[in-house]
Amino acid sequence: MLRPSRLRDRIVAGPAAAYSVLDEALVCHVGVVVDGRPHVLPTLHARVEDTLYVHGSTAARILAAARPEPLPVCVTVSLLDGLVLARSAFHHSLNYRSVVIHGDALLVTDTEEKARILGALVDRVGTDRSAQCRPPSQKELAATAVLAVDLVAASTDVALKARTGGPIDDEADLALAHWAGVVPVRLAAGAPEPDGGGDLPPVPGGLAPTLR
Amino acid sequence: MLRPSRLRDRIVAGPAAAYSVLDEALVCHVGVVVDGRPHVLPTLHARVEDTLYVHGSTAARILAAARPEPLPVCVTVSLLDGLVLARSAFHHSLNYRSVVIHGDALLVTDTEEKARILGALVDRVGTDRSAQCRPPSQKELAATAVLAVDLVAASTDVALKARTGGPIDDEADLALAHWAGVVPVRLAAGAPEPDGGGDLPPVPGGLAPTLR
Repeated sequence: MLRPSRLRDRIVAGPAAAYSVLDEALVCHVGVVVDGRPHVLPTLHARVEDTLYVHGSTAARILAAARPEPLPVCVTVSLLDGLVLARSAFHHSLNYRSVVIHGDALLVTDTEEKARILGALVDRVGTDRSAQCRPPSQKELAATAVLAVDLVAASTDVALKARTGGPIDDEADLALAHWAGVVPVRLAAGAPEPDGGGDLPPVPGGLAPTLR
Repeated sequence: MLRPSRLRDRIVAGPAAAYSVLDEALVCHVGVVVDGRPHVLPTLHARVEDTLYVHGSTAARILAAARPEPLPVCVTVSLLDGLVLARSAFHHSLNYRSVVIHGDALLVTDTEEKARILGALVDRVGTDRSAQCRPPSQKELAATAVLAVDLVAASTDVALKARTGGPIDDEADLALAHWAGVVPVRLAAGAPEPDGGGDLPPVPGGLAPTLR
């Protein structure tokens, strides 16, 4: 019941498949341990080559904990692809793609590196967006916190896990008169809503580039 | 930069707003501590009154850890509502709604309770779906693991956090000739894809009831 069938679940080895999920998802969930208890916070991320950068301003707790040392983190990225309806309650499931990264996060302190990362984070919301807005000042860079997770060091864990395809019903259930199939789901972008109160240039192309 | 402005971020007290987010989201991220390190796993959940039930079969590690005692968990549910493009890189942001629940999870062992929860989990993918498929057998119930988190005990933490609205640019940036606004995003359901290999009744109504 809502348990992915083993036949439909698979782990795809190698970083390429995992990286494609990191690059498509706009939000990750970062887990840290604080006083022995788990904390999970959603935030934005950007992958640059073999490093995953996680925006930290929304996660003050992460930052506070990260300052002194490399911080053990678990960064999980998941994309929901479909609802799987089987003829039996038990075989209902979800189609998904997910990547779980166990690594050590370091606070980025170099100003030039930080500026580059902030550009990569801004480019997540629109192709070349970082070149189409005012770049950050030194003060703004100082006020922004970014954590870096080395994906090569974490690579034994960085693999895509996915479920795809239709329901897997028991043979004995196939004749039951219940509808079965998949409802595909995806994160979709709506029409851009211009900010009020002033003249604006035309809506740029390439907004939300990873949404299908 | 991609940092939610304080003016647009707010915490909505009281469980009602938080519950609506739990009820809309199809996936949660469950954090646990294993050997001192954080682990974050995506899974399906269902709220029934003041209890959040988390499906555990996809999270073997959670279950293994949960068996002996109440397990400290952090269950985070987040919904992405929009990409916020400002005239400055620094004020780019995301619109979202999220709930972070710090609680103790218990493994559900009572068979009747488990059957009721499994029904609630199946009903997440379609209105009354649990009445439109073969109910679970005793063996299937035994093979299914569900964790329960008491939301009242966790209630000091159960609040909606949200960012809404357009970008908040600095006054000095408002005259810059950069497009600014919001790209709304939502999880959308596509056309149902019937399972092959047999006659099926018509597609039921009420599929993916929480997707807008």
